[in-house]
Amino acid sequence: MRFEIEIPPIGGDAVAGAVRRRWDSLTKPPGSLGQLETLLLRIALIQGTAEPRAARKGLAVFCGDHGVTAEGISACPSAVTAQMVKNFLAGGAAVSVLCRYFGITPVIVDTGVMTGPEPGVEDLRLGAGTANFVETRAMTEEQTVRALRNGRALARAWSGRFDIAAAGEMGIGNTTPATALLCAITGANPGDVAGPGAGLDRAGVGRKADCIRRALARHRDAVSSRDPMAILGALGGFEIATMCGFYLGAAEHRLPVVVDGFISTSAALVAREFAPAVTDSLLFSHASAEPGHAAMCAALGVRPPLALDMRLGEGSGAALLMPMIDASAALYSGMATFEEARVSLPGSEAARP
Amino acid sequence: MRFEIEIPPIGGDAVAGAVRRRWDSLTKPPGSLGQLETLLLRIALIQGTAEPRAARKGLAVFCGDHGVTAEGISACPSAVTAQMVKNFLAGGAAVSVLCRYFGITPVIVDTGVMTGPEPGVEDLRLGAGTANFVETRAMTEEQTVRALRNGRALARAWSGRFDIAAAGEMGIGNTTPATALLCAITGANPGDVAGPGAGLDRAGVGRKADCIRRALARHRDAVSSRDPMAILGALGGFEIATMCGFYLGAAEHRLPVVVDGFISTSAALVAREFAPAVTDSLLFSHASAEPGHAAMCAALGVRPPLALDMRLGEGSGAALLMPMIDASAALYSGMATFEEARVSLPGSEAARP
Repeated sequence: MRFEIEIPPIGGDAVAGAVRRRWDSLTKPPGSLGQLETLLLRIALIQGTAEPRAARKGLAVFCGDHGVTAEGISACPSAVTAQMVKNFLAGGAAVSVLCRYFGITPVIVDTGVMTGPEPGVEDLRLGAGTANFVETRAMTEEQTVRALRNGRALARAWSGRFDIAAAGEMGIGNTTPATALLCAITGANPGDVAGPGAGLDRAGVGRKADCIRRALARHRDAVSSRDPMAILGALGGFEIATMCGFYLGAAEHRLPVVVDGFISTSAALVAREFAPAVTDSLLFSHASAEPGHAAMCAALGVRPPLALDMRLGEGSGAALLMPMIDASAALYSGMATFEEARVSLPGSEAARP
Repeated sequence: MRFEIEIPPIGGDAVAGAVRRRWDSLTKPPGSLGQLETLLLRIALIQGTAEPRAARKGLAVFCGDHGVTAEGISACPSAVTAQMVKNFLAGGAAVSVLCRYFGITPVIVDTGVMTGPEPGVEDLRLGAGTANFVETRAMTEEQTVRALRNGRALARAWSGRFDIAAAGEMGIGNTTPATALLCAITGANPGDVAGPGAGLDRAGVGRKADCIRRALARHRDAVSSRDPMAILGALGGFEIATMCGFYLGAAEHRLPVVVDGFISTSAALVAREFAPAVTDSLLFSHASAEPGHAAMCAALGVRPPLALDMRLGEGSGAALLMPMIDASAALYSGMATFEEARVSLPGSEAARP
């Protein structure tokens, strides 16, 4: 089985020019709305129109379990993943509340929770949790390719259903594969980037770093190959691989995707190894409190606009970027121009006629 | 004329305990919502209740003109202040759009625009712009005291009208007094902290830094006195002094105030010199792109949660914190508890009964 995708760079000089002219015609110093201006510009470029749309919003929560929890690297037992899937479906989780509040449609995607599928999930299961990657590869090659294809197909379907997507995840133990992927792709040292996840104590963080060191040693051939398929299969997770395919498919279909925190960004790191231009379609939302996230953002050259010290996952940080995007769209379409309001342009000496 | 105010520290151990217990009962790792948790906790402490309210929101745009514009320190002519007041009243400015979008009541406060008052403003005028503080003090002592009293009285009125307030400003040239206040209060060097404001070029920034140096020299007695009344009168502005009084009155009446960017933070720096506990009632919103803002935040020991590179003023950054506050309140009241959702607590081995 193979997975191949080509994503052309996004281009769009005419769209960029039109968007910048509109922003600069509005009653404010040029550029003074900062990232609100660039967010809207980027959505316009992805959608290929100077009148971008953001009304229809979907948020996928990719859920999966991890064999590596056997190593004692999480503060919670794996059973919590399935419990949280029920909580998502019942509307009681943080991301459920945020989706209701901000008018986002949540979709719970089961990529391989230990028990499942629950009625109401999008069933993209690849097994009952991954294997323990300290002992063997996390996923078979077939599972890895299927995960990427599943994510890509979901993005294709969503490109007709939503104007803008967000991606989050739930999977007890998944900061460990995300950290392992960070180390494998950027060469970061596990001792420098391993963090507490949902609440490990210091000894637990040490155990986690050690577990990642052992995994990197076991899978050194995959790591040194620099082949994203091999790295993802050895060290990833079902939800991470499906998200990775989702980002790639979204870029292919010009659907902007808001990226959540640590785990979601690890999937973006892998996606970029498949197709560098994928990052043109990704909007990073928040700087996670998980220590390795800063290293991921540095590797990707991005600086997320929300600095809320969150470390929850689920897509909660991505959901919080949606009101910023809506605000940006409201400003772009709703502000008065210098001409309409008879306000003098900066640098001029008198009001326009 | 005198201005005296005493603000007791905010206290509230019982409220803090109740809020933390509620947050920790919800289905998420403890503390994982980061600043969303602390924002709501702070509002609860200010309001003195574990069931804080944020539904009724007001945003005051304090507007005033500045004699120091005669020194060529702004990219725009002073006439733009009055033009923007009209734009606020007509609903075409950025802050107007944001207030509509986020359900905030905007109130335009004329503290001393060159021409005015326009019908529809809250008239707290102290003159037709301040004096040029390079030549003389910006405001008389009487104007300074009246500005502080006006702001304090406005906050008293708002404490019965709104659950949460935000403060922004408009005043061509006002990054210059704000920078001068930063230098006078913290000892910062004008050359290090003067910035482009609405769009000065490099030569303009140099002129601005030089103008601030001259003002600090002229008013060295006020600066070395460390008396906030003397410093504010010498180097401030009508809108800055009225905001300063507004913060103090809000703290007195336990009304949380969301602080905008560079100018609004300069008023907070001055307010803290009058009464250190005032900062307990202030919620900082965004990190401004104006270079001196980082120095202000460092002096106040705060790290604003939004990093949008904005530099518009008007209260635009403060308005953008409102959906974060609303999200926080929605999560606090709307998420399921571990018990309700039958999700295992972190650290436990099985689901609760």
